[in-house]
Amino acid sequence: MPRVSQHHLDTRRRQILDGARVCFARHGYEGATVRRLEETIGLSRGAIFHHFKDKESLFLALAEDDAARMADVVAEQGLVQVMRELLAGDGEHPADWLGTRLEVSRRLRTDPDFRRRWAERSQQLTTATRNRLLRRREAGQLRQDVDIDVLTSFLELVLEGLVSHLAMGLPADDLEPVLDLVEETTRRHQSREDD
Amino acid sequence: MPRVSQHHLDTRRRQILDGARVCFARHGYEGATVRRLEETIGLSRGAIFHHFKDKESLFLALAEDDAARMADVVAEQGLVQVMRELLAGDGEHPADWLGTRLEVSRRLRTDPDFRRRWAERSQQLTTATRNRLLRRREAGQLRQDVDIDVLTSFLELVLEGLVSHLAMGLPADDLEPVLDLVEETTRRHQSREDD
Repeated sequence: MPRVSQHHLDTRRRQILDGARVCFARHGYEGATVRRLEETIGLSRGAIFHHFKDKESLFLALAEDDAARMADVVAEQGLVQVMRELLAGDGEHPADWLGTRLEVSRRLRTDPDFRRRWAERSQQLTTATRNRLLRRREAGQLRQDVDIDVLTSFLELVLEGLVSHLAMGLPADDLEPVLDLVEETTRRHQSREDD
Repeated sequence: MPRVSQHHLDTRRRQILDGARVCFARHGYEGATVRRLEETIGLSRGAIFHHFKDKESLFLALAEDDAARMADVVAEQGLVQVMRELLAGDGEHPADWLGTRLEVSRRLRTDPDFRRRWAERSQQLTTATRNRLLRRREAGQLRQDVDIDVLTSFLELVLEGLVSHLAMGLPADDLEPVLDLVEETTRRHQSREDD
């Protein structure tokens, strides 16, 4: 009997994650029952939990998936670009992504064990942001008078604000120039060099 | 028969708001039942709803109370000072304040009618922030190359990020220099003038 191919496994895993994302965004973590997950994904619970140990693991895989995708954009174009895409509603599944992110926020508040598991995963976005800032500093594009870690935390804090703002459905049509200002804040200025 | 004095009314109103704040922070909006409100406030439902039409009005009064208090700090010392107090855990009832604020976020996401009523109230914080920036600009302390509205939105976005960050229980001991950077971003620089 031939073994299941890696391609088949990957495809199946992708199908489960995509369906689960919609389900969590629509119903929240608690509301995404196994029955609803089956319906949205289009697979039986046996098939789903063959790939993921339990609902918690499925949710963390999803959050990890998002973090990895964001880290890719950050490495290429920086965290402000992630924010611009979020603002423009570009990128894959922006609404679902926000839903997942909100669910992460909610569980971080209420579940210390989840907070610990999440901390390991969210670290990769911080690392990607920090590494990109380091490369920009080496290229002489970054301001020299503020520590890299402070700039990293600054960018992450603005991202958190943006996620919260968008998730609350507040008007966001005036935020483009705010992101310009945020980007400019990290940049090296000729005038600063002249001080 | 003598009428109830204004002082008595104010004291009663304050007692109800203080108790309700604790109750909403502890149980969330939905979880703050009338019975729990009675227990935390120490008054009967008759007495409570003599002063506030219903639970929604009580909650909005509370949120409005917080917004007014924040607007006072903003007028005197600016929005970054509000953030510093939040970070230091100073000020009155920081934990309860965060709880109320989170409940506001949650209801903004799920209740369009609440979003409309809230918009009117949150406007006063924006106005206070904008007015203080205008005064700083007149005093020559503010950078001239960025619109006042952009600076206002920038500060509000960072505040949203900070509230979200603290509410999630994420480590915040490294955020003091980030707030310094935020404050510096709005400031007039000698070097910028020399451009």
